[in-house]
Amino acid sequence: MNANKDAYVIGVDFGTLSGRAVVVRISDGAELGSAVHEYKHEVIEDRLPGSGVPLGPSWALQSPDDWREVLRRAVPEALAAAGVPAEQVIGIGTDFTASTPLPVLSDGTPLCEIDELADRPHAWPKLWKHHAAQAHADRINAVAEQRGESWLARYGGKISSEWEFAKALQILDEDPEIYARTERWIEAADWIVWQLTGVETRNVCTAGYKGIHTDDGYPSRDYLAALDPRFADFVDKLEHPLSPLGGLAGRLTAQAAAWTGLSEGTAVAVGNVDAHVTAAAADAVRPGQMVAIMGTSTCHVMPSDQLAEIPGMCGVVRDGIVPGLWGYEAGQTGVGDIFAWFVDTAVPAAYVAEADRRGQTVHEYLTSLASEQPVGGHGLVALDWHNGNRSVLVDHDLSGVMVGQTLSTRPEDVYRALIESTAFGARVIVEAFENAGVPVAELVVAGGLLKNRFVMQVYADVLRRPLSVIGSDQGPALGSAIHAAVAAGSYPDINVAAKAMGRRTEAAYVPDPDRADAYDRLFDVYTELHDHFAGASRGGTEILHTLRTLRNEVTT
Amino acid sequence: MNANKDAYVIGVDFGTLSGRAVVVRISDGAELGSAVHEYKHEVIEDRLPGSGVPLGPSWALQSPDDWREVLRRAVPEALAAAGVPAEQVIGIGTDFTASTPLPVLSDGTPLCEIDELADRPHAWPKLWKHHAAQAHADRINAVAEQRGESWLARYGGKISSEWEFAKALQILDEDPEIYARTERWIEAADWIVWQLTGVETRNVCTAGYKGIHTDDGYPSRDYLAALDPRFADFVDKLEHPLSPLGGLAGRLTAQAAAWTGLSEGTAVAVGNVDAHVTAAAADAVRPGQMVAIMGTSTCHVMPSDQLAEIPGMCGVVRDGIVPGLWGYEAGQTGVGDIFAWFVDTAVPAAYVAEADRRGQTVHEYLTSLASEQPVGGHGLVALDWHNGNRSVLVDHDLSGVMVGQTLSTRPEDVYRALIESTAFGARVIVEAFENAGVPVAELVVAGGLLKNRFVMQVYADVLRRPLSVIGSDQGPALGSAIHAAVAAGSYPDINVAAKAMGRRTEAAYVPDPDRADAYDRLFDVYTELHDHFAGASRGGTEILHTLRTLRNEVTT
Repeated sequence: MNANKDAYVIGVDFGTLSGRAVVVRISDGAELGSAVHEYKHEVIEDRLPGSGVPLGPSWALQSPDDWREVLRRAVPEALAAAGVPAEQVIGIGTDFTASTPLPVLSDGTPLCEIDELADRPHAWPKLWKHHAAQAHADRINAVAEQRGESWLARYGGKISSEWEFAKALQILDEDPEIYARTERWIEAADWIVWQLTGVETRNVCTAGYKGIHTDDGYPSRDYLAALDPRFADFVDKLEHPLSPLGGLAGRLTAQAAAWTGLSEGTAVAVGNVDAHVTAAAADAVRPGQMVAIMGTSTCHVMPSDQLAEIPGMCGVVRDGIVPGLWGYEAGQTGVGDIFAWFVDTAVPAAYVAEADRRGQTVHEYLTSLASEQPVGGHGLVALDWHNGNRSVLVDHDLSGVMVGQTLSTRPEDVYRALIESTAFGARVIVEAFENAGVPVAELVVAGGLLKNRFVMQVYADVLRRPLSVIGSDQGPALGSAIHAAVAAGSYPDINVAAKAMGRRTEAAYVPDPDRADAYDRLFDVYTELHDHFAGASRGGTEILHTLRTLRNEVTT
Repeated sequence: MNANKDAYVIGVDFGTLSGRAVVVRISDGAELGSAVHEYKHEVIEDRLPGSGVPLGPSWALQSPDDWREVLRRAVPEALAAAGVPAEQVIGIGTDFTASTPLPVLSDGTPLCEIDELADRPHAWPKLWKHHAAQAHADRINAVAEQRGESWLARYGGKISSEWEFAKALQILDEDPEIYARTERWIEAADWIVWQLTGVETRNVCTAGYKGIHTDDGYPSRDYLAALDPRFADFVDKLEHPLSPLGGLAGRLTAQAAAWTGLSEGTAVAVGNVDAHVTAAAADAVRPGQMVAIMGTSTCHVMPSDQLAEIPGMCGVVRDGIVPGLWGYEAGQTGVGDIFAWFVDTAVPAAYVAEADRRGQTVHEYLTSLASEQPVGGHGLVALDWHNGNRSVLVDHDLSGVMVGQTLSTRPEDVYRALIESTAFGARVIVEAFENAGVPVAELVVAGGLLKNRFVMQVYADVLRRPLSVIGSDQGPALGSAIHAAVAAGSYPDINVAAKAMGRRTEAAYVPDPDRADAYDRLFDVYTELHDHFAGASRGGTEILHTLRTLRNEVTT
């Protein structure tokens, strides 16, 4: 190993509401200090800062300077907390939410920071959860299907409205002047690296998963022209050699050194995505190690040496998680969000009061009640489609289903059924991989839902497999630090660095055979409901689409 | 008309928790005074009064003396409230919950009032909602099907565990000595008349709907012996000439006159059932006038000149509502109960607080929010099977389904969907009648849910027909008073008496064509879900039965 016992790296994780910096020892991955900075403007959903210009429904923007502020605040604070002198920090790595693209000049200046454009909504970064480009995504998919574009299958058959092309096409449609002035259309993951290094790079991960970059490059000029003649040269705003994950993007500029308190010239790693970088933090970067980052939604990432086009994947990208392997991504659109929706809208006052009396959160109290039941005791099965379905159906117009309620059904029964439904959804994804000939050797859990041990046990029982759990509660930041160590040359590659610095507990949860048997029976019910309500494509009913159509007709 | 301007009758309605007496003027049905007496022992579900002997799950008993106390208290109080002298009261009529049978000696003495039997649970009256005889009902149905008993189709293909035969068979199985000492097995509807008159009568209504009495008489000795050889002579405990509704059962005894404050010799009407007697109060006793008594559940009663065996009816009984016509009964097992379950278990504290601030009940507040939505705006459709399904599926093992939930679904959305689901359930029943060639000319609503105008409008819109509403909020008691007037000879028959004394508002709610069109689309969805989840008999799925089986396996 090249690991220098006295050397450190910093990982910085840019999330939806805040950025977190962690100082990590290169030799063993020990986390010595961390700091969080919350974005001043959080998510910009109603009005632009300053001008107060109102935004449309489903918009979600961010302010680039909120991100810079993380460099100015959280990095020095983390350094101070760790008690590590700046000269011993030899690398910095970053990860970001994605797809979060922004329009910039060729020198990296965000258009929203140009005075005369600051009151134009389309000049601002569009956060991943900006959902106002659905019509544009629909057009992208319809034209791709019609032309038989080969890249479509790599994305499970559908390009998301959250991704780079849909968001750019929305700008062209709605504010062509901003589109024209956009010299570069860049993921925040790459933009923040540009801020640190002064040079533009493009990482293979976001280019592949969010930018429709495949072995054949970007979508063709002909295809883009078919979307809109003015969109034909859109790729010019993206085109740039791609950088491998763990690669050296550049070195810290004097300005960035002043912001962060680090030394000028410190190695800066190529940008990355929060979910994908977590795999390294869990030391789960070998073929068949699937990492499920479970939070409000769940993202599944898995390296594999097999290439298969699995229906309903978010994407399969060469080198997309670690160089040399195919990287798969799949997703569940609602997990913790569903539990939170239930707690917010469907739990009576007496439960809230009792939780309070016990000094528990409502989630903890419901969990304690739910965990006492035998499998199947509540008589319920749900479909976890309250926010649509990403994998494996790729249909955001689906909605939730709850079956089996009686006059004796209690809140904890429904809560448990919702937890189970997300576990069934996860099992559908794992089985889709295996049925396509891509083995899932180990399932590793990361993310906020780890703290609910009952949820974890349900997943182990439903999936009939042991669950490993990540050994850090700062997974993305630790993953970014590992990438920084590789970029700094302390380790030859991500695999070796992850082994030294990442950590997980294997088989932290193991299935109980009796419960697993009972869950098999409920999973049969789930599967039948799943295929029935998925619609005509699975030989089922179009009821959910009918209800969505009627809803959309009468509410606008 | 024979109506005497200065003559009055009293109607007494024996409900589940209390009895109500109303003094009514014979000439026009004016209600001059009323009084309610709440049963001291309410529903006996946990332990016997006095001895404290514990009861099993799903038991529900009552105390006969609680019923007598209604005669001693509520009747004199109503008389006093009305300011009517006893000598001007020429008749008394009663109605009762059903099936509520009790074991008595041949002089009418309840076995539970015999000292040495008071600590035996089976000596007590079994209230309609005693549900501990399901296994016995299952045996009754299985043997009837196996032997091809012709009467089974008159009851929609299934005899309920709530009825006389199942409850008696439970006694034989579990306490044969009590069974042996039961000289008469009698509905409380007839027992209370026995208390008033000193003579036993049996009304055609409970005999037909609850006692399996058809044109061919009671089930055969052979059939009963097939259930259990010791049950072969069960009908001996029932057999008695049947009395027509509106008939004179007898005259008030000296003792009953002393209890009630009425004159000895006052005419006493034949006993009746609360739902059926309501038809007279609504002046809705002609062919095709369907009265829906909407409360915790809904009971539908309708006279018709057509005989048809309609799948899923509770029963069709000659003279069962008014003499000379076939009387149909159908039912929805959960209506107000479902709304109450939702309010009790699924409405968050903030809604309760806001309702409180507005001085509204939670039902009123949710209704006000729900009523503002366009039809289909919530994107939901539910199946109203939280308490099983009586008509038209006759399957108490079914359970509720909710389809279309999203992370934006609010409590008022679910509340509205539940209301709509019960209206769809009512439409299925009305269509079953019409499809069987039994026209439903008018739909008349009675019962506690009348007070929710939004619920009524939803029913009018969903059913695409005007709703009439009963003109009294004491429907059963008024109906009993009308029967008393017939028994006393003031009117020649129930039809004429109902016309003079009963009342309803025709077309109190009329459907809105646009909403009705939108509901047609949702009803198509409901119908598809209905037939799908009904099970294999309708070409659908057995999922609900699978869930119920698993639940029963793991929870006992």
